[in-house]
Amino acid sequence: MGKVDIQQLDDVANLLRIDSIKMTCAAKSGHPTSSCSAAEIISTLFFNEMKFDKTFPKNPSSDRFVLSKGHACPVLYAAWHQAGHVSTTDMMNIRKITCDLEGHPTPRLDFIDVATGSLGQGLSCAAGMAYVGKYIDKASYRVYCLLGDGECAEGSVWEAAAFASYYKLDNLVAIVDMNRLGQTQQTMLGHDADAMAKRFESFGCHTVVVNGSNVIELLNAYNIARETKDRPTAIIAKTLKGKGIIGIEDEDNWHGKPVPESTIEAIEQRLMNKADIAGTLQINLPVNDAPNVQLPIGHIKMTPPEYTIGDKVATRQAYGIALAKLGDACPRIIGLDGDTKNSTFSENLLKKHPGQFVECFIAEQNLVGVAVGLQCRDRTIPFASTFAAFFTRAADQLRMAAVSFANIKCAGSHVGVSIGEDGPSQMGLEDIALFRTIPGSIVFYPTDAVAAERATELAANTRGIAFIRTGRPACPVIYGNDEKFEIGKGKIVHDANKPKALIIGAGITLYEAKKAADKLHSENVEVIVMDPFTIKPLDKDLIVKSARRAENRIITVEDHYQAGGIGEAVCQAVSDQKDIRVRSLFVLDVPHSGPPDALLEKYGISAKCIIDAVHQFIHPPN
Amino acid sequence: MGKVDIQQLDDVANLLRIDSIKMTCAAKSGHPTSSCSAAEIISTLFFNEMKFDKTFPKNPSSDRFVLSKGHACPVLYAAWHQAGHVSTTDMMNIRKITCDLEGHPTPRLDFIDVATGSLGQGLSCAAGMAYVGKYIDKASYRVYCLLGDGECAEGSVWEAAAFASYYKLDNLVAIVDMNRLGQTQQTMLGHDADAMAKRFESFGCHTVVVNGSNVIELLNAYNIARETKDRPTAIIAKTLKGKGIIGIEDEDNWHGKPVPESTIEAIEQRLMNKADIAGTLQINLPVNDAPNVQLPIGHIKMTPPEYTIGDKVATRQAYGIALAKLGDACPRIIGLDGDTKNSTFSENLLKKHPGQFVECFIAEQNLVGVAVGLQCRDRTIPFASTFAAFFTRAADQLRMAAVSFANIKCAGSHVGVSIGEDGPSQMGLEDIALFRTIPGSIVFYPTDAVAAERATELAANTRGIAFIRTGRPACPVIYGNDEKFEIGKGKIVHDANKPKALIIGAGITLYEAKKAADKLHSENVEVIVMDPFTIKPLDKDLIVKSARRAENRIITVEDHYQAGGIGEAVCQAVSDQKDIRVRSLFVLDVPHSGPPDALLEKYGISAKCIIDAVHQFIHPPN
Repeated sequence: MGKVDIQQLDDVANLLRIDSIKMTCAAKSGHPTSSCSAAEIISTLFFNEMKFDKTFPKNPSSDRFVLSKGHACPVLYAAWHQAGHVSTTDMMNIRKITCDLEGHPTPRLDFIDVATGSLGQGLSCAAGMAYVGKYIDKASYRVYCLLGDGECAEGSVWEAAAFASYYKLDNLVAIVDMNRLGQTQQTMLGHDADAMAKRFESFGCHTVVVNGSNVIELLNAYNIARETKDRPTAIIAKTLKGKGIIGIEDEDNWHGKPVPESTIEAIEQRLMNKADIAGTLQINLPVNDAPNVQLPIGHIKMTPPEYTIGDKVATRQAYGIALAKLGDACPRIIGLDGDTKNSTFSENLLKKHPGQFVECFIAEQNLVGVAVGLQCRDRTIPFASTFAAFFTRAADQLRMAAVSFANIKCAGSHVGVSIGEDGPSQMGLEDIALFRTIPGSIVFYPTDAVAAERATELAANTRGIAFIRTGRPACPVIYGNDEKFEIGKGKIVHDANKPKALIIGAGITLYEAKKAADKLHSENVEVIVMDPFTIKPLDKDLIVKSARRAENRIITVEDHYQAGGIGEAVCQAVSDQKDIRVRSLFVLDVPHSGPPDALLEKYGISAKCIIDAVHQFIHPPN
Repeated sequence: MGKVDIQQLDDVANLLRIDSIKMTCAAKSGHPTSSCSAAEIISTLFFNEMKFDKTFPKNPSSDRFVLSKGHACPVLYAAWHQAGHVSTTDMMNIRKITCDLEGHPTPRLDFIDVATGSLGQGLSCAAGMAYVGKYIDKASYRVYCLLGDGECAEGSVWEAAAFASYYKLDNLVAIVDMNRLGQTQQTMLGHDADAMAKRFESFGCHTVVVNGSNVIELLNAYNIARETKDRPTAIIAKTLKGKGIIGIEDEDNWHGKPVPESTIEAIEQRLMNKADIAGTLQINLPVNDAPNVQLPIGHIKMTPPEYTIGDKVATRQAYGIALAKLGDACPRIIGLDGDTKNSTFSENLLKKHPGQFVECFIAEQNLVGVAVGLQCRDRTIPFASTFAAFFTRAADQLRMAAVSFANIKCAGSHVGVSIGEDGPSQMGLEDIALFRTIPGSIVFYPTDAVAAERATELAANTRGIAFIRTGRPACPVIYGNDEKFEIGKGKIVHDANKPKALIIGAGITLYEAKKAADKLHSENVEVIVMDPFTIKPLDKDLIVKSARRAENRIITVEDHYQAGGIGEAVCQAVSDQKDIRVRSLFVLDVPHSGPPDALLEKYGISAKCIIDAVHQFIHPPN
């Protein structure tokens, strides 16, 4: 780096302010004051500290920048404008439907890795990127994450800090823009920067408190961070909200609204380099030391399943076996878990390929956030696992993963009442609903071990957010090892002539449905039993075709609550079909602890309950 | 308190160990080692420190105890056994379907206030209880929360700690059972009690580090906590997992499984008082200084809405108006928000009744957890509000609120693409699905201001978890102030002779449906438009009756994703009806930023899209 032009960095900060004000005035909405507090942080990062390739923002060797306080995106857009990558026209079209400079950043923009705007999530993603940089890419790039002070009330920030220090991520720098003011009032810590620093320090970060509007202090802090080994650095930058805007700086009631455009004048007057300085700005190019990675998505071949039909294997166990095999096939398959790895069987990957596994401890928000960070720029394919119920802890992170168009795989074990004695707090009963809501997601619900292995392989080979729902109990293998599985293709596992109803079950309830079918057959009542394999997409064609054969009757049965589950998905799939009727069995109430079989019975999803439902359907009481 | 019998407390601890081992052996599952590490903590709390009424565990004046590490419930059940409240028979039936001593604690037991078992949630609930004790009941009872060290990786713990110190909850004591071992490996901090203390200290707690197996040190720590003013105390109790079990103590691979019953022998030998000491145990009775509260649920009368048909009012604004009115009517209506109170309009209550409002800052997990704590023992009726999207951050807390059979009300604003420019991160598009999954929940989706006020009133007057979905845009009032609303009763807002289809919309899409109906009428195509008012329960009768009148065609239209939304709920409701067909309009993809009207159009839920759908439905293309 050459001699630092402090005045230029001050000037750039003010130019960023001016552009932030201008673009939010043009949009008639947005967050100029939250942008202005961060102007020097951004000017120093982009035009002195960071190494990046403005012509190819996704360069794998470039330093990463995550704007965790996503609402301050005007200042970020302004920085990329100063860098010459965002046009004036685009900038002035911020928040319009035709322009990808959205109200909060999304990876529709080539210089955004992860969507932000739900606060407190950026540091987890940044930590994931830093983990890849240090341990997987083993490259020199660094990761900078800008947080607001208000969002430090989110626990996920502290999950990320603990993770980053545990894994000694000295390539990660968190910068807190401590501008004192939240949306509606002063934050909990106000301007007590030392108290904030103490928090980061206690979570294992090296900390530096600076005046966040002072370019020299900021540059010095970045230097300290670069020299700090074996732990991340948190820079607590004391700033003022609306800094530089006369009459608005440090005042309440200016969150998330444009300021008068006339306020620009005073800022312009403070500029020393009145001429356009864009061309003269220093941008440090990256050191191209990140390895070339071409993820073989679509071509990751796992060795075939090796089961014997009838052997009892839990699908969670088969998931673990498949994950380890995928790890053999591709060194960029990474497993993550939340201290449940011996329950989800993700430990199989850890045992075989310790370098491809990240223990995230009991912090599911961070687990998912780190996974999102790991997949950025296609560096890895992360498989995150925990109990299905505990993915609800990361529902917002999963929602945002969709906005990030992320390529992550989640495996949730211990679903439904069939887990038994541990009771309702441990039972995944809304996980299908949760993952079905995610745009473009795939929801696998493999019934046996062969299906579970293939689901895992298909998840690895299909871009996007996939969920694999696995069960606790060991159940018989029903498919041959050479059975072919496809996303969106179900299977008929029990068929007969002149069936009276189609029964759709998955996992434990498919076994119950098969039992019911056998029993009904002995009573001369024939049914079809279907295994949907994926609940999303659902094999509508097979459902409709089979229902038509079965006197237009469908019974769904699932170890899950009703809303958003298999039953509703099936009802939706046949909703435009005349004549087809659907009845659904599902868990209605908060379940009790107890033995799995007794719970299946009590909550109305056992073979016996299915048989009763079939009888009632075909012989309605008068 | 009389003279402390240290030996007795040691003996009780060992009796708790013995019972924990016995009951998990009987159940063939459970967590004896996690129980044993906490035995002295529990014996000292229950038989020296705490004041409670063993014959009436829900006594409002009693000290509260929250077992955040819910899997250690055997030791808690054993304590209530020693107190004489749980029978030996029940204790030996733990985890059976017939016994409410479940695998993790739930309020099916009279001595449990909140369900635990999803880790890291207890301290938020405890903080809510302590808030009530200090500021609302203004009583002397204290709140004790026992956490595991592993669960301190959950960010929600730190949200709760920050909240508790911000509100100076010196009646709250967090005790961390730092037994070093998680489920699958050593925790992040291992036995570094000072590092753990530093974290709690930095979050504003007074901290004491003790040997958690030493009765005298524990009693001393409780004393310090009682003498600490204006901040909560965190006691870091260094313990050993499986403490006292020979060959198992402090060893890996003993999480969540019974230990050999023979290990009891050595523990029994350590007992000094071999005889049954249950009768001699000291239990301190509460000081009965909590006010008598009878929540008038079912009788809280709000002054009627005062709107003019056609005036434009956002439902979020009407929510705020109603909330303030409820605050007038009942001093135990408490509003909570996550620093969005000027957006959700919950600030109306704060302005009118500052003592009935709790700002929870940007920490939605804790927001919901505190609400659950506030409602315990029917002390208050909490209304928690934030953007609907951000309730996903607390999805696990909401799931557990259901297991707690909690009486909480959530109001989520800024739903759907109709919020416009702020973009997808701020749009609630899965909130209906989230709240519909909760067993027994009520999901209100009021369309206009009158309906929103009535929804708020009905929520206050109906026990359970209720969600009120409010919108950002100001839309015309369509109902008269004297319109009657009922849970589960929809309304026909547009009718005609010989209708060709029933259109079901809510909120912004009801207005679009009405516009579509008017336009279709001008083309001589008649439709019925229905406002369901509550999405759960759904007015199935009105839907079926109206669809039958409308040539069996239903079109649903919602500003929400498909899964678990209005469309699927309607499909489910009519699934057993022959002939009725349903088509659904919903948001399919991750939306973009843009003006609301343009987004309604782009995502296929505008009046024009409805009109097209009606035409296609009644005149299918060849």
